[in-house]
Amino acid sequence: MEKILLSHGGGGEETWKLIKELFFKYFSNPILESMEDAATLSVEGKIAFTTDGFTVSPIFFPGGDIGKLAVAGTVNDLAAVAAEPKYLSVSFIIEEGLPFKDLERVVQSMAKTASEVGVQIVTGDTKVVPKGAADKLFISVSGIGKIVKEGVSARNLSEGDVILVSSTVGDHGACIFALREGLEFEGLKSDCVPLWDMVKRLLEEGINIKAMRDPTRGGLSAVLNEWAQASNVGIFVEEEKIPVDEKVLGLCEFLGIEPYDLASEGNMVIAVAPEDAQKALEILKSHPLGRKASIIGKVKNQPRGKVILKTLYGVERILEPPSGEILPRIC
Amino acid sequence: MEKILLSHGGGGEETWKLIKELFFKYFSNPILESMEDAATLSVEGKIAFTTDGFTVSPIFFPGGDIGKLAVAGTVNDLAAVAAEPKYLSVSFIIEEGLPFKDLERVVQSMAKTASEVGVQIVTGDTKVVPKGAADKLFISVSGIGKIVKEGVSARNLSEGDVILVSSTVGDHGACIFALREGLEFEGLKSDCVPLWDMVKRLLEEGINIKAMRDPTRGGLSAVLNEWAQASNVGIFVEEEKIPVDEKVLGLCEFLGIEPYDLASEGNMVIAVAPEDAQKALEILKSHPLGRKASIIGKVKNQPRGKVILKTLYGVERILEPPSGEILPRIC
Repeated sequence: MEKILLSHGGGGEETWKLIKELFFKYFSNPILESMEDAATLSVEGKIAFTTDGFTVSPIFFPGGDIGKLAVAGTVNDLAAVAAEPKYLSVSFIIEEGLPFKDLERVVQSMAKTASEVGVQIVTGDTKVVPKGAADKLFISVSGIGKIVKEGVSARNLSEGDVILVSSTVGDHGACIFALREGLEFEGLKSDCVPLWDMVKRLLEEGINIKAMRDPTRGGLSAVLNEWAQASNVGIFVEEEKIPVDEKVLGLCEFLGIEPYDLASEGNMVIAVAPEDAQKALEILKSHPLGRKASIIGKVKNQPRGKVILKTLYGVERILEPPSGEILPRIC
Repeated sequence: MEKILLSHGGGGEETWKLIKELFFKYFSNPILESMEDAATLSVEGKIAFTTDGFTVSPIFFPGGDIGKLAVAGTVNDLAAVAAEPKYLSVSFIIEEGLPFKDLERVVQSMAKTASEVGVQIVTGDTKVVPKGAADKLFISVSGIGKIVKEGVSARNLSEGDVILVSSTVGDHGACIFALREGLEFEGLKSDCVPLWDMVKRLLEEGINIKAMRDPTRGGLSAVLNEWAQASNVGIFVEEEKIPVDEKVLGLCEFLGIEPYDLASEGNMVIAVAPEDAQKALEILKSHPLGRKASIIGKVKNQPRGKVILKTLYGVERILEPPSGEILPRIC
């Protein structure tokens, strides 16, 4: 197999060959290999269920690729509701002519990321569309997780809660931006990584997490504005506390955009009860994925539904929710 | 909103407007409207988990559209492992410029089909890609169902088992084929429909179902060949027993193709224990979706891994698994 052909999506012999020689090879597990129309799983109690489509362009970028992003992104959506990631489904939509080795590299990367988290890819589907009907490769992943702590929710914030981020903001967005626009910003790298292990530590230590969200499309501004509206509170954050990588800052200054609107793929925004804030910060900083964690602000009663940013100059201004489309196909 | 814009996939204000004004309007249920990164579900015992990508072109066709097909197809994959469909996730990948009314019509159709089955759409994602990076609309749907009868499996066939189909074969494939090739075959119509209610009847009546599969891509030939290989048995079917709509037969004769390779989307291939065959047939025939049901053949010990078709002329020949790609984007 040198290239993916329409017949690989036809449901006949070539499809089975692709499934056996590629997907079973890397995603190998007994549930997947049962080859039924649906996987059979045993679960008890409350589960979380999520889905995301990935259309990022280019499909390979510094720090990751569409496969790592798809697994990490889905795992992070489960982690954000305090759910242990257990099972994933994968739906590939492939443009005819995609080099087999590109697909293999993506599949390998998905398998590696899934195995690091301990999540199994148990069911999948592959469609191949004619040249020009899609751009290279789209992946939709759904995930099922076991909820470890109930009630973690955007509607859960109240006065005094403290807001943390586990890492720098905007790394993924800045990396894809520079790559797509052909800008030379040496060293920009996607932060794309599954965060479950870090979140698990917070839960094991009994931190009273009120809300979590990974700030992907729309970045930190989107998450904070959603929270302020969903919980009907005011959120105050201080610019000097928000960690931004120097190279990301450089790109933002060059382009005149805000890092708060740019996607992260390895960062978690976390709201905790005030008495747990310091402990949460220490746990995050002691974890390899949370070394750059920071307390960035807190929740107040007013102004309801709004986010206030205290700038480096000490001025307070509203941090608006992002609008328009800075860069399509960021994830 | 007249057309879908890139900003509708940006994760900011326009995305929220689309979610609230379109998806919440039609898919309305409390789980979806919690607006978290993942839906929280309560399930107990064995569940089935499946995913499918839908890339059918055109997105509207006689008998259905890509939305109805996506819900019905996923429901049927769950039904095929004897699982009651409970929850669906939906991932939309939309080409910039798609008329809003087209997306609305698809969403409405998904909501209607889901509601007929009693399945809830509880989580979703929307990506918009620039013009030319996708063709109109792709939908990936994942489904979770509650397994009602364990062990229904392609590996479960043994000598004497009886094979039934619940309806005519190839209707969906023939309809899309004619439409795409601009052939005038009056009255061809996709059979696209969710089959859970019919399967439920068989289960309620205690039919000993060994295996089930909806013959989509690759048609009846693909299903029977998979079964013969997975169970290491021979499968014998008689051409005169296999129901094929006259108009489908006409198209097949005109094109020189076999109806057994064409996709159905409202048909179930069912293997049952010999003593239950007549009762299963009666139950199917008494259901509105199974009026054209037929016993088409049986399972033997030899030739292992092969499907034998007795033609109308009384000749026995091997029914090969389909290969190549008759028509891309059939589902």
